[in-house]
Amino acid sequence: MFTLWFMGRPASGKSTLASRVEDQLVDLEYPVENLDGDDIRKHLHPDLGFSREDRRTNNRRTAYIAKLLNRNDIPVIVGMITPFRDSQEQARDIIEEEGEFVLVYVKCSVDTAAKRDPKGLYEQARDGNIEKFTGVNHPFQEPLNPDIVVDSEDFSVEESVGHVMTRLDEMGVLQEHLDEGYSFSLSRDEEQEITDRLQELGYLDE
Amino acid sequence: MFTLWFMGRPASGKSTLASRVEDQLVDLEYPVENLDGDDIRKHLHPDLGFSREDRRTNNRRTAYIAKLLNRNDIPVIVGMITPFRDSQEQARDIIEEEGEFVLVYVKCSVDTAAKRDPKGLYEQARDGNIEKFTGVNHPFQEPLNPDIVVDSEDFSVEESVGHVMTRLDEMGVLQEHLDEGYSFSLSRDEEQEITDRLQELGYLDE
Repeated sequence: MFTLWFMGRPASGKSTLASRVEDQLVDLEYPVENLDGDDIRKHLHPDLGFSREDRRTNNRRTAYIAKLLNRNDIPVIVGMITPFRDSQEQARDIIEEEGEFVLVYVKCSVDTAAKRDPKGLYEQARDGNIEKFTGVNHPFQEPLNPDIVVDSEDFSVEESVGHVMTRLDEMGVLQEHLDEGYSFSLSRDEEQEITDRLQELGYLDE
Repeated sequence: MFTLWFMGRPASGKSTLASRVEDQLVDLEYPVENLDGDDIRKHLHPDLGFSREDRRTNNRRTAYIAKLLNRNDIPVIVGMITPFRDSQEQARDIIEEEGEFVLVYVKCSVDTAAKRDPKGLYEQARDGNIEKFTGVNHPFQEPLNPDIVVDSEDFSVEESVGHVMTRLDEMGVLQEHLDEGYSFSLSRDEEQEITDRLQELGYLDE
């Protein structure tokens, strides 16, 4: 079974997208578990903060739980900043022991994220009231090996959901449910349009 | 779905019993996950030690993972000392949010456990070479509300497995698989004999 790991800056839209992809998977009758970052922090390790080591620990433990669920044929969705490359790769290593790992990078510039800023956190961080806020006064490392890139600045949530589902389809991740005839893809034209725009914007190499 | 939480002193036989009950459940085609204590410590939180607070944290996080699995219809087996009453009850509270919690107390005196002592730990603890070893120089609180009591001093592993499975049957925990006609119970005579002996030994009130 698979884990879809949505990573990106605060306010990049990763949780919204993760939740909408979850809806699609539920429609496909996958018994999906959404390991929400806030929930994990609250219940698994409320003692963890936001230092580099604590963020790595948060990511590693979440990957371990995802692996356990994947081992039992439960697909998992994770939405976490995952700011460090070593954690991104470690999550892959852990989960691939039992399942398939799909790293979805929800790409968004700091400026756009800061303009959205639904919780007002960027502003607080810039005013010096939050320590270690990703992208303001703490690092964010773009992934070297994302399986799917979603541009949340220039695409709507609907387009992004379609892009993720189509890519999952192409990658064969959804294979076992395809035979049941459920259609979730964008049309090829719509998908091509998104792909073209991503290429123009420099996000896809091929 | 349910979690069977096997608790007891080191070398009480809880892991052996848990593993044998797991075999029975696999025979019944339950997709059971065994959250082994050592494995959890190694992969989830290698930083935890054996202080009171660390033991409580270990128990609480394990309960949280069991809850996630139960929520997804995966039955869970846990084998952990769980030396504190508040942790025993907290595990119940957490798991009952999503599933059924069955506390199995594997009862064994310190002396008998120390005689078995497959890893030589009691001896080391008594020689002062291990700090905070349960039952020697760290507390063990017998559970107030076990759902099943197994006496591993006076009963064989086979008898204990039969006792657990029969009790689970009686409690209705295995209900959904009963219709499939699989028989795992001891005969009523065998079960009565075990119940009688447990009562003689003072382990059962009824």
